[in-house]
Amino acid sequence: MNDERYARGWAKLKEVDGQAGENVIESLKDIAPDFARLIIEFPFGDIYSRPGLDLKVRELAVVAALTAMGNAAPQLKVHIHGARNVGCTPQEIVEVIMQMAVYAGFPAALNGLFAAKEIFSHEAPA
Amino acid sequence: MNDERYARGWAKLKEVDGQAGENVIESLKDIAPDFARLIIEFPFGDIYSRPGLDLKVRELAVVAALTAMGNAAPQLKVHIHGARNVGCTPQEIVEVIMQMAVYAGFPAALNGLFAAKEIFSHEAPA
Amino acid sequence: MNDERYARGWAKLKEVDGQAGENVIESLKDIAPDFARLIIEFPFGDIYSRPGLDLKVRELAVVAALTAMGNAAPQLKVHIHGARNVGCTPQEIVEVIMQMAVYAGFPAALNGLFAAKEIFSHEAPA
Amino acid sequence: MNDERYARGWAKLKEVDGQAGENVIESLKDIAPDFARLIIEFPFGDIYSRPGLDLKVRELAVVAALTAMGNAAPQLKVHIHGARNVGCTPQEIVEVIMQMAVYAGFPAALNGLFAAKEIFSHEAPA
Amino acid sequence: MNDERYARGWAKLKEVDGQAGENVIESLKDIAPDFARLIIEFPFGDIYSRPGLDLKVRELAVVAALTAMGNAAPQLKVHIHGARNVGCTPQEIVEVIMQMAVYAGFPAALNGLFAAKEIFSHEAPA
Amino acid sequence: MNDERYARGWAKLKEVDGQAGENVIESLKDIAPDFARLIIEFPFGDIYSRPGLDLKVRELAVVAALTAMGNAAPQLKVHIHGARNVGCTPQEIVEVIMQMAVYAGFPAALNGLFAAKEIFSHEAPA
Repeated sequence: MNDERYARGWAKLKEVDGQAGENVIESLKDIAPDFARLIIEFPFGDIYSRPGLDLKVRELAVVAALTAMGNAAPQLKVHIHGARNVGCTPQEIVEVIMQMAVYAGFPAALNGLFAAKEIFSHEAPA
Repeated sequence: MNDERYARGWAKLKEVDGQAGENVIESLKDIAPDFARLIIEFPFGDIYSRPGLDLKVRELAVVAALTAMGNAAPQLKVHIHGARNVGCTPQEIVEVIMQMAVYAGFPAALNGLFAAKEIFSHEAPA
Repeated sequence: MNDERYARGWAKLKEVDGQAGENVIESLKDIAPDFARLIIEFPFGDIYSRPGLDLKVRELAVVAALTAMGNAAPQLKVHIHGARNVGCTPQEIVEVIMQMAVYAGFPAALNGLFAAKEIFSHEAPA
Repeated sequence: MNDERYARGWAKLKEVDGQAGENVIESLKDIAPDFARLIIEFPFGDIYSRPGLDLKVRELAVVAALTAMGNAAPQLKVHIHGARNVGCTPQEIVEVIMQMAVYAGFPAALNGLFAAKEIFSHEAPA
Repeated sequence: MNDERYARGWAKLKEVDGQAGENVIESLKDIAPDFARLIIEFPFGDIYSRPGLDLKVRELAVVAALTAMGNAAPQLKVHIHGARNVGCTPQEIVEVIMQMAVYAGFPAALNGLFAAKEIFSHEAPA
Repeated sequence: MNDERYARGWAKLKEVDGQAGENVIESLKDIAPDFARLIIEFPFGDIYSRPGLDLKVRELAVVAALTAMGNAAPQLKVHIHGARNVGCTPQEIVEVIMQMAVYAGFPAALNGLFAAKEIFSHEAPA
């Protein structure tokens, strides 16, 4: 294990996914603890930590991709929440999901919008 | 037909996809001319023309989604080119494709990178 | 907004999807009201309203596609109900779902059949 | 091997897919001859031979599904040709592919239309 | 109906999927009884009964594929249970699911691991 | 960069994918050199190097998944070749691809078999 990479990944996971990310890691502890470590190291330590694209755009791109794929509802919700965590507005998230109607069809976009509606409803009023 | 919507869509299609977009429309003329019109009206007239998300982010989100889906190579190339047209740097495009390795796997990201390599190689030197 | 197109789409949505379609439109009102309008205008006003293919075949094709994609369960149920609304028999719907075992695998067909079983069970006895 | 089922399947495969279907069977002879037999027996002997849905609708549903999935271009072409073999008009095929823009996105529909354009161009003039 | 093939398939379905497989067959009886028979005959009578690959590897391959596809959660659970029935260890199942992070992305692998966690938790203590 | 992890990954990539793997790495050098390094480190250094599942089963599972996904033809071919490199027989590879007809449909299995036919045809006679 590379301690610096792990520490960088752990900090980034908390920055992006917040408590929801920590819960995923925790829930892997009994079934696949190595996978918990690998999530911290590769997606967050290696990829999210790269320069060259700001975190808001990374998260909007992830929301777009998970909406289009349509087969990973829990992770879509985590990343809609993550997009909010890093500063995306609800409007930006709704726009990027609506855009997916063109590329992945209306059902994918509808299911993305309903996921966003659920996540936004849990937010504390401003 | 709604002339204003069509005109707005046609201008937006040329702004985003350039000649590649016009070629797609042209190639539909004999098989499905109505579909050519619908592409101009709905994706470009209705969706791309919306405020609330800048064109660079829209195109990076589309590149992300088409990379992740992995089943629409011609359109992925059109939109890598489109991302360049609206001002995205090669680095931003490469970063958003690399990010997809996390969400859709390494084969999807690899095929996206090879598509980008092909499109970038056709660009006139700066 | 084009009033004629909207009116045509709204009538078609009610003809095909009935109350389930109206509920989808209603549930979008707070999160993405423009998307509610776009669903009425493009899929129903522009596509479903076209001549050249009767509504029963359109709905069976949509049931086939959503069964094969396997990632849009709520919309599959809406369109199994829609197929019944426009006059498809339960047997026709079951046959088209079974056909998908060949093209998208047995899990996709099984999940389609269980969706049909649920929808048919809500129908009033003849 | 069940001779009656095989004979029924072989006749149905020739009715639907014609020479293209026979070529697929032939090309499997050296790599997986049992799979050639299974294709004749299950998809064609068991599924396509069922009553309850006419062949034209079966083929339009298959064209819809393969267009929507977007990852089986050779089989999509075989079944666009098959739809023509069993009596579907070019217009019906184009309509069912256009319908998929709503459910699987514009790239899927575009690639389906270009496949249809290629198949139709090989047909002898009426 | 071919009695020998049906009997061979039924025995194999019980060997692989156990009670969960019988439940699927039972639940199809009212909606699509022919499909229940076809599941026994083709996947189990024709494919699973073939020599040339042992059942443990077949089940690990199915777990891999259903994890990667990510759109058939009920069947993934049946086959994680099936892999256990034919002698795969929890560790082997976890490893093959983790491997899918590389080919289909982390969300697919995560959802596979959570399915495995659920199935393993229902097992009687050794 | 962690030198031990990189060295372990590089050795494993050569063991599994051979020259085809080295070619992929080479072709990334100009477009995304960091991604070349990440492929060596994560899939091969972290995942393929794990104990708990032998390499033959890992490769058969990857062939199964890529066949089922159907959207990554170049990588499917690399891994059919990889399966041969680590000791899988052509029969085992054909069986695992045929098994996918049940889970992802006949087109996916057919395209997998044709990929295998191409790879096997390049092998030196025994």
